[in-house]
Amino acid sequence: MKELPIHIQLQPESGKTLYEQIYGFIRDEIRAGNLLQNEKLPSARFLADYLQVSRTTVDMAYGQLVSEGYLEARARKGYFVGTFEELYAIDGAHKSGPGMSGSRADEQTSIRYDFSPNAIDMRFFPYATWKKITKNILVDANSQLFSLGEPQGDLALRTTICRYLHGSRGVNCVPEQIIIGAGNDYLLLLLEKILGRHVHVAMEDPTYVKAYRIFCSCAYPVSVVPMDENGMRVDCLRQTDAQIAYVMPSNQYPTGIAMPIGRRMELLKWAAEEENHYVIEDDYDSEFRYKGKPLPSLQASDKAGKVVYIGTFSKAIAPAIRISYMVLPYPLLERYRSGCAFYSSTVSRIDQTILNEFIQDGYFERYLNKMRKRYKEKHDLILNELRSFEKAFHISASNAGLHVVLTDKMGRREEELAQAARWEDVKVYQMKDFRMSRDIGESEATDANEQAALILGYGALEQEEMKEGLARLRKAWELK
Amino acid sequence: MKELPIHIQLQPESGKTLYEQIYGFIRDEIRAGNLLQNEKLPSARFLADYLQVSRTTVDMAYGQLVSEGYLEARARKGYFVGTFEELYAIDGAHKSGPGMSGSRADEQTSIRYDFSPNAIDMRFFPYATWKKITKNILVDANSQLFSLGEPQGDLALRTTICRYLHGSRGVNCVPEQIIIGAGNDYLLLLLEKILGRHVHVAMEDPTYVKAYRIFCSCAYPVSVVPMDENGMRVDCLRQTDAQIAYVMPSNQYPTGIAMPIGRRMELLKWAAEEENHYVIEDDYDSEFRYKGKPLPSLQASDKAGKVVYIGTFSKAIAPAIRISYMVLPYPLLERYRSGCAFYSSTVSRIDQTILNEFIQDGYFERYLNKMRKRYKEKHDLILNELRSFEKAFHISASNAGLHVVLTDKMGRREEELAQAARWEDVKVYQMKDFRMSRDIGESEATDANEQAALILGYGALEQEEMKEGLARLRKAWELK
Repeated sequence: MKELPIHIQLQPESGKTLYEQIYGFIRDEIRAGNLLQNEKLPSARFLADYLQVSRTTVDMAYGQLVSEGYLEARARKGYFVGTFEELYAIDGAHKSGPGMSGSRADEQTSIRYDFSPNAIDMRFFPYATWKKITKNILVDANSQLFSLGEPQGDLALRTTICRYLHGSRGVNCVPEQIIIGAGNDYLLLLLEKILGRHVHVAMEDPTYVKAYRIFCSCAYPVSVVPMDENGMRVDCLRQTDAQIAYVMPSNQYPTGIAMPIGRRMELLKWAAEEENHYVIEDDYDSEFRYKGKPLPSLQASDKAGKVVYIGTFSKAIAPAIRISYMVLPYPLLERYRSGCAFYSSTVSRIDQTILNEFIQDGYFERYLNKMRKRYKEKHDLILNELRSFEKAFHISASNAGLHVVLTDKMGRREEELAQAARWEDVKVYQMKDFRMSRDIGESEATDANEQAALILGYGALEQEEMKEGLARLRKAWELK
Repeated sequence: MKELPIHIQLQPESGKTLYEQIYGFIRDEIRAGNLLQNEKLPSARFLADYLQVSRTTVDMAYGQLVSEGYLEARARKGYFVGTFEELYAIDGAHKSGPGMSGSRADEQTSIRYDFSPNAIDMRFFPYATWKKITKNILVDANSQLFSLGEPQGDLALRTTICRYLHGSRGVNCVPEQIIIGAGNDYLLLLLEKILGRHVHVAMEDPTYVKAYRIFCSCAYPVSVVPMDENGMRVDCLRQTDAQIAYVMPSNQYPTGIAMPIGRRMELLKWAAEEENHYVIEDDYDSEFRYKGKPLPSLQASDKAGKVVYIGTFSKAIAPAIRISYMVLPYPLLERYRSGCAFYSSTVSRIDQTILNEFIQDGYFERYLNKMRKRYKEKHDLILNELRSFEKAFHISASNAGLHVVLTDKMGRREEELAQAARWEDVKVYQMKDFRMSRDIGESEATDANEQAALILGYGALEQEEMKEGLARLRKAWELK
């Protein structure tokens, strides 16, 4: 054991706990550069003895420093100061600790021009209105509002959602079919309890990766089914053992394919043929469409009670609004009621009431209209700017949503294009990360055949940022 | 088809949708008694033709009326006006529709004196403070607050909870071990994803029914393990194949047994013996204790990283605050990070920030102190009033929590005692409903041996209500 590299002075009068003092001292030493990257720290036992504090206190301080990335714990070797990239990320944004692989943290980046397809524009959110509604609700609040609501969600909000979905998406349902939950992830977990175990799921390829991961964590076997220009190929779906088809028929993510009525009927026919066949329709961003008539939901065409319709307010209002909804067909509603209705609601009545007023008083519609206009401007701008890319790329997925897809015509590899962009401080997203056939090990054959495709989201970028980002891409990809 | 029994006048100028008009008209006719119980309604098709509206409109109106209990749908027979009891329940409290079997709706009652062990007293909740904090937070709010937070919950709130748990419950952890979720039910679902499938769970008998149902809906095999005066018998636990023991060591629900340190060590020893053994400690109402020293948590004694600690703010603050927390030992934290960290947080950042300030600014502690005093008064009152019950009943579970248990000494049956109470408009709760050995089919042998026991909760009752309720029980049970 080398000399103790740090000289912590514990100050009993400081009002801080010992844990906080140790944590704060080491953190500041690292930030100041007095402890260098990869430098080894004394063992927790040694430091505890040295400082005459309990081992737990030092463990807690080290644990916190590890969780924030200042330290690294190496198995059987001890604690070391973290490396530079990690510290950089920490000082940039305190979003999540290291080791959160598989989460959004992967996408976290310090890159200047990030064409993330998930990000949305919150600059025009009516914060003042939201605050006003919240304030008014709390002024009138009684203990009822602070009590546990119905498991499915408040009837008032379910009724409002029911009307909204009927009017905007043609969804046919009554409020009793709606379940409100804290986000799509939660609703898929609840749906697992309704569907039961050993349910085989078919997904489009590429698809929404989060849903794929959730099905895997439910230990559901997942088949990926190829798509053509009309969406999931039902002839291929029939060759699987799937009971559930998870689709995004109005604006497939990330391809942007809209499933026409003929294919929808084929899919609904498949669902109607077997009692245990169902379709999950994830209508994740139905609100923003720029070209063509808004498509009604698949659920609107479902006469046989075979579609589970899922939607969210995270995209149209704000990611922090943890309110999603699921419309169950009657057979699954029965199963929910007999086997799952004891699960308490995951959304507070206060939040449900705020959202309900936000919709009922017309603010939601007004905000949507404003955002449709804003996103349309961005959409038109990016398509215009992308004209100079057309020799090298085919542009698609531009009728709706908040991203476009660039498919390479010149035989270049995705990694190569993405890396070239990164050198210009621009982040674009690779289609391969959305292809779950890779994960299942069906990638070998397809890899060579598939053209490189990149996803460029524009929801959160300002117009000037978008222009500069695209100019850098032109340079990176050597476009004239 | 008999004559149309209703004469709806649709009013295009009323500003209401056709669906609302049909729904409202039929509802009012039923309330007014113009449509009688069990009376048949015209078929949806007939009514749609008659009114010249779409079939969907009538379906929606009927569906809504069914969901609210005004109508009943009978298979292959059509729609009928609901029966009296249902309507009575509807007018009493608009809490949930019929058919919600298995949910809290079962416990919903129009009985005057309800000794519910779940209900809490919200009369002293600092609504004004909560509103003030909310208002201040929203005044300072920026778009960051409306963004999606970390999957585990905001670091600020996790740090606050970490300190609170260490100070009040002796829990040893760092904020990185804490996961915040929208209620215990959600956290148990997430824990299922961390633990994996085919996990055998052992529970105390009697136990918390909701947790039992959740494990069943996860298809986990569940063994119930007998208790003695020290809690779960670890010798019996060893005879099962269980990997997970779910216990409430500080105040077992509903028996009120506190597990002494010897038994705790036995349990922790069991857990430490096998790599896949863990203990789930549900510390559901650690805040209220009237007799003896507050017990530290089981997690506080765990040196081997074997305890998952779960707690909630629903009981200590308000059921509407859908915020619970789970402390993961490191091996399970690793599994969470590698396999489950992609699940988005179920609690909005706004709600997390409000709660964090409520605790940090000392309001939580002050409110807890006030409620400890209030509940202590109620506790002392009920114990005093129950003296006259002592010839016929043994009184227990009175050291902590918000209920007591009355065990019959005179050989009477639980059903009999509960029914006698109901005739006096008093609701008490039967111990058999908490014994999951029944559910598993181990009830036959034990039924005859077990003494009748009734659970009387007093959290929500006013002192006068409690006195009157107990006077009625004395009468019902023929006590001198």
